[in-house]
Amino acid sequence: MTSQSKYKVIGTRPIRHDGVDKVTGRAVYGADIHPTGLIYAAMLRSPHAHARIKRIDISRAEALPGVRAVCTSADLPEQGDRIVELGEGAANMRHLSANILARDKVLYRGHAVAAVAADTIHIAEEAVKLIEVEYEPLPAVLNVLEAMQPDAPVLNDDVYTQTPGGEQPADAKPSNLANHYVFDKGDVAAGFAAADFVIEREFDTTMVHQGYIEPHNATVHWNSDGRITVWMSTQGSFTARQQTAELLRVPISSVKVVPLEIGGGFGGKISVYLPPVAAILSKKSGRPVKLVMHRSDVFEATGPTPGSHMKIKLGVKNDGTLAAAQAWIAFEAGAYPGSPVAMACMCVFACYDVPHAHIDGFDVCVNKPRTNAYRAPGSTHVAFAVETVIDEICEQLKLDPLEFRKLNGSREGTRRVDGPVFPRVGMIETVEAIASSEHYQTPISGKLRGRGVASGFWFNIGFKSAVTATVNPDGKVSLIEGSKTDIGGTRTSIAMQFAETLGIAAEDVMPTVVDTDSIGYTDLTGGSRVTFATGIAAVEAAKDVQRQLIERTALLWNVPGDQLRYVDGGVSGPDNRRISFQELAAELNATGGAVTGKGSSSEATQGGAFSTHCVDVEVDLELGKVQILRYTIAQDAGTAIHPSYVEGQMQGGVVQGIGWALNEEYYYDEEGTLRNPTFLDYRMPTCYDVPMIDTIIVEVPDPQHPYGVRGVGEVPIVPPPAAIANAIYHATGIRMRHLPMSPPRLLTEIGK
Amino acid sequence: MTSQSKYKVIGTRPIRHDGVDKVTGRAVYGADIHPTGLIYAAMLRSPHAHARIKRIDISRAEALPGVRAVCTSADLPEQGDRIVELGEGAANMRHLSANILARDKVLYRGHAVAAVAADTIHIAEEAVKLIEVEYEPLPAVLNVLEAMQPDAPVLNDDVYTQTPGGEQPADAKPSNLANHYVFDKGDVAAGFAAADFVIEREFDTTMVHQGYIEPHNATVHWNSDGRITVWMSTQGSFTARQQTAELLRVPISSVKVVPLEIGGGFGGKISVYLPPVAAILSKKSGRPVKLVMHRSDVFEATGPTPGSHMKIKLGVKNDGTLAAAQAWIAFEAGAYPGSPVAMACMCVFACYDVPHAHIDGFDVCVNKPRTNAYRAPGSTHVAFAVETVIDEICEQLKLDPLEFRKLNGSREGTRRVDGPVFPRVGMIETVEAIASSEHYQTPISGKLRGRGVASGFWFNIGFKSAVTATVNPDGKVSLIEGSKTDIGGTRTSIAMQFAETLGIAAEDVMPTVVDTDSIGYTDLTGGSRVTFATGIAAVEAAKDVQRQLIERTALLWNVPGDQLRYVDGGVSGPDNRRISFQELAAELNATGGAVTGKGSSSEATQGGAFSTHCVDVEVDLELGKVQILRYTIAQDAGTAIHPSYVEGQMQGGVVQGIGWALNEEYYYDEEGTLRNPTFLDYRMPTCYDVPMIDTIIVEVPDPQHPYGVRGVGEVPIVPPPAAIANAIYHATGIRMRHLPMSPPRLLTEIGK
Repeated sequence: MTSQSKYKVIGTRPIRHDGVDKVTGRAVYGADIHPTGLIYAAMLRSPHAHARIKRIDISRAEALPGVRAVCTSADLPEQGDRIVELGEGAANMRHLSANILARDKVLYRGHAVAAVAADTIHIAEEAVKLIEVEYEPLPAVLNVLEAMQPDAPVLNDDVYTQTPGGEQPADAKPSNLANHYVFDKGDVAAGFAAADFVIEREFDTTMVHQGYIEPHNATVHWNSDGRITVWMSTQGSFTARQQTAELLRVPISSVKVVPLEIGGGFGGKISVYLPPVAAILSKKSGRPVKLVMHRSDVFEATGPTPGSHMKIKLGVKNDGTLAAAQAWIAFEAGAYPGSPVAMACMCVFACYDVPHAHIDGFDVCVNKPRTNAYRAPGSTHVAFAVETVIDEICEQLKLDPLEFRKLNGSREGTRRVDGPVFPRVGMIETVEAIASSEHYQTPISGKLRGRGVASGFWFNIGFKSAVTATVNPDGKVSLIEGSKTDIGGTRTSIAMQFAETLGIAAEDVMPTVVDTDSIGYTDLTGGSRVTFATGIAAVEAAKDVQRQLIERTALLWNVPGDQLRYVDGGVSGPDNRRISFQELAAELNATGGAVTGKGSSSEATQGGAFSTHCVDVEVDLELGKVQILRYTIAQDAGTAIHPSYVEGQMQGGVVQGIGWALNEEYYYDEEGTLRNPTFLDYRMPTCYDVPMIDTIIVEVPDPQHPYGVRGVGEVPIVPPPAAIANAIYHATGIRMRHLPMSPPRLLTEIGK
Repeated sequence: MTSQSKYKVIGTRPIRHDGVDKVTGRAVYGADIHPTGLIYAAMLRSPHAHARIKRIDISRAEALPGVRAVCTSADLPEQGDRIVELGEGAANMRHLSANILARDKVLYRGHAVAAVAADTIHIAEEAVKLIEVEYEPLPAVLNVLEAMQPDAPVLNDDVYTQTPGGEQPADAKPSNLANHYVFDKGDVAAGFAAADFVIEREFDTTMVHQGYIEPHNATVHWNSDGRITVWMSTQGSFTARQQTAELLRVPISSVKVVPLEIGGGFGGKISVYLPPVAAILSKKSGRPVKLVMHRSDVFEATGPTPGSHMKIKLGVKNDGTLAAAQAWIAFEAGAYPGSPVAMACMCVFACYDVPHAHIDGFDVCVNKPRTNAYRAPGSTHVAFAVETVIDEICEQLKLDPLEFRKLNGSREGTRRVDGPVFPRVGMIETVEAIASSEHYQTPISGKLRGRGVASGFWFNIGFKSAVTATVNPDGKVSLIEGSKTDIGGTRTSIAMQFAETLGIAAEDVMPTVVDTDSIGYTDLTGGSRVTFATGIAAVEAAKDVQRQLIERTALLWNVPGDQLRYVDGGVSGPDNRRISFQELAAELNATGGAVTGKGSSSEATQGGAFSTHCVDVEVDLELGKVQILRYTIAQDAGTAIHPSYVEGQMQGGVVQGIGWALNEEYYYDEEGTLRNPTFLDYRMPTCYDVPMIDTIIVEVPDPQHPYGVRGVGEVPIVPPPAAIANAIYHATGIRMRHLPMSPPRLLTEIGK
């Protein structure tokens, strides 16, 4: 299914460069870092969902033999009301700091309060229990709608409602409603007036965690010359460097982040939690300090995706064309503002060419952990809502849901409600791919079985990347990239683009991810950007190598460089003269030394990725259990650099989406205590829950990338909950409008 | 004394960037590397100076519980008669391989025979004792003159005498005399005929070890994908990579050398001893393997500087001008060919403008460890000989020895006997600096006290270096260099040249030494090349940054780039418009991403370094002990980048030269067993043996470097033995012509 014929390396499936390291246990993760003199730290966390801290007494902890340092928020620099650019967005440093160690209040169960470093982790954990904290418990608010009520307990006294362009009234009061985003296109009232019929529905979703295998970890040494080295698992070594430096208020260059291999991130390893705390403990003790979260800490105190409440209203004409659309989207930000609700607004109607629309997005604080990105942040929520309403529309219109999408789907020139106009995109092509698939062409039969389809969008980001590459005498190339972290085989996808440009084999490129002192600024691994943007940097670096190889050949042959061309893995000149890359590589040390090429990417933006899914389910009415019988995903990858990893991203996204759809949820009791902070009780899909996910790679090249790459990592998680909800309806006649559609919830609906 | 006024950074004395790491124990040396799953190796070494290996039985060692792998030369690939370019010279791979693990013969006591890797070092050492080796002892030859006799035992049956341009006779027989170098200038016979008098003397020196504190070490992991990672202490990570790859016969790019901090090298950490052995043990065991030498291994089996026998004949006219010179220099190569005798030939008469000369150099195998470079290899030997003969000449001529040097010293245009013509050099200036020094101006008085002077030369090398540098938003620069290893503060001397070029502070540059996958090819740290050649690369990289900053400013100001200039740490434009480097750095992420500059050096050659020394001694006739009373060194540094480190190199070289002069020697018994392979018995100077060494930095800029740098590391070791011998003569009337001039030897001469 891939356009391999056009290229020599792109579209092939070489073994990933870090494959053997990963499967033999040689890859270096946080657990493998043991600097000489290492000591170990543990954290004290809040037992309350909302409380004032009246007093912290660390004296008994400090007195315990073996304890080397104790740290509370008093040790973190004051931040004032600073907003700091962090490369991929801005952060309110006071909130970021207070989330790392609570100052006057704890805002969620599990909120970090203090930390202890000691000779062993056991002493550290014992010492943590000796820290006395006097709390004044406060009423907690745990639900987005309740938190928006005027009489709700307010979490942050420095948060006021921010509206786009809106003036703050002089008598404005602190509020849980931190941001109100508004987007308009056309005249939504006129649009609905012109519609033949209108459907409006409400939806709820709960917090869901990324569920990465590896917990957060940081090993930090604050040297006496002021240089701070951080070994950690992170999606963005430069972002982590900047956050750590800003939180400690030290110059950014005094922090070196050494990115280790990462045991999953999915958006949850961008925010910094541990490095500043470990840094202070290191400064106090003079020793390197290791701080690792327990699994319960990961669930309770790192950023899941928000719970939400949404209202979607769609107006349609009898000919099936969308007339108007309206969305009201409220996301749980968690303890501090910053949910991805703005991104949800960008995605909510992006699959469709809707002439008139209005979107309200609300970012709302609740007494739960500060939420964070999770794979296409916000888009899965709104796709669940919009795509199930569209299924209702198609049912009323008696229109095939794929036909509806062909009719209304976004294409080149469609303007998104939030402004951008699409370049060439592949929405319609993914719909057509599903329509013509063997899966969709095969009728579903059997009792309590149903089929659902849904589409999804993710805009994909560009941002900055840097690559340098050095040619070795044996014709292999050392390629250095800042794109920590190799989450989905990106060492290989970058190396392949470099190899393609230089006309050599993928195996002849040796990609290495290096620390922040050793490569140019590179933004985080996220937003489905790495294969796109770091790929552009790799192509630039390869072209830089080409230029230098032409110069060397000019010297070797004593001909002017403008008579030479780099083509097909070598330099060609007059009289059919030819020297291969490998031959040139062997000559470099004798003709001026090593050749190093560099490339960077900073301005490019992506055209966006679309995906359309088809799922068959069977529902057990007695158990309320939904079995996934068959699943097919069609997705526009632009150009699939390494089809296996594209398929892997598609399959992984679908499996996570199935988890959201059927089982995963944060389950809080009334006191705001998470009752399922373990993998035993927080139920993620296992191999027993999912069939083989069939993949169809659609290739509509993105004109903004030299090889047409589109990011593929995020959009596959978007459609599954909607597609499964639609399938459940067609199996049972029950419309599910609450995630997860778990057995208890399904049984409740069946009971009705 | 330095030309600091010309520069802002060069000539100042900032704290070295790695200083805190080094003094607080944070710097990572071989002892600090512990990959997960590490096992430990020990080696079996020959008890014989010369023997045939008839049988090796490793079965008992393999059977010992805890043993993971055993390795002998049978596990090393066959090398055939390959000569391989190693960047800084060539090597006969068969000899290199046989030196690492003996094949059919052991050629010196301590020659490695086998190695064992086990769960603990104790098990490994126990297992080594279980290896049974059947030897057939052979007669050993331990002295260079004896080894040259026709009936001497021959070490290598594949070594024949190589003469320059000479044909090998058909009936040539294997010989210990591996190479015979010949250099001629003018007509030496006519020169001597025209001389008014001629002096000819013979000299002997013994093997001397570099005496670095840290023993050789290597931790190696051979991954199942064929990638080999070597963590080691080395003077040349790329050289070590190439040797390791060639010895294992794997592609060079499959080896990654991670250079660790180095506890001294002085030329002794260029050849590879341990990595291939540890690599094979790792391949066999599937585990990372650590192999570290004992101190006795370091003495017995790594490369010291050769023992030698030399004849020097000088002809002089009565007006004091040199008429002719002749040298016969025989060096002990050790077990395999490759002594630095050719370099000795290049240096022997280089301080003087001699019209007629003839030089013979002989490279001779003896049953001692294969010799290696040691700080200005070969030059100290020949300076000891030539400079003491000149002292005799001056005595006969009743000419001040400094006046003789002013009269005959090399200057711009002088042609060296081996060919090159000097560009602007500073020989005469170092003589003048000593002549006008307070030390030389102050007469020496007292019984048995004497003063000696001597000069020395080292040609310094250029070779290839690579540097890349990335600008951080806070105005600091991450500078990446391949010049492992920071032996003498070169992180700082490179960073300072970069800072000077960019007009920023030395402290704003953060130098990092990285592994061989992360930087362009860079030759070894040796030959006094790093501050020169890597400095050139750093200046190039800074200029590359300048160019890019001008481009960015052009964008920011919307003016053509050709109206902008980078000057005084910022960009200046029309209408006195100005933006500083720091202001620009903060704008980079918003104007196209990070700026990375790269630079390399490959073609530059150095003009050479000269040094003239003056020493006062007092001799205890009863004990034969020589006390150094006062010592002054004047040396041409070209331009002293960091004067403290230049002074440190000068002082360190002198102290090592004092060791050579007075105490250090390899003491072999008749069976070829080294009797003093410990720091207790191999007597190096301590602080009780040396006064403060006074330094005079002379600055005659080298026109071949943008800031006029000359390498400073090696030449200071050259004159001390000669200067001290001359001082002993002037104190006692005894001419010493054997190194070391130790109490037993001096007492023998006194007895005569």
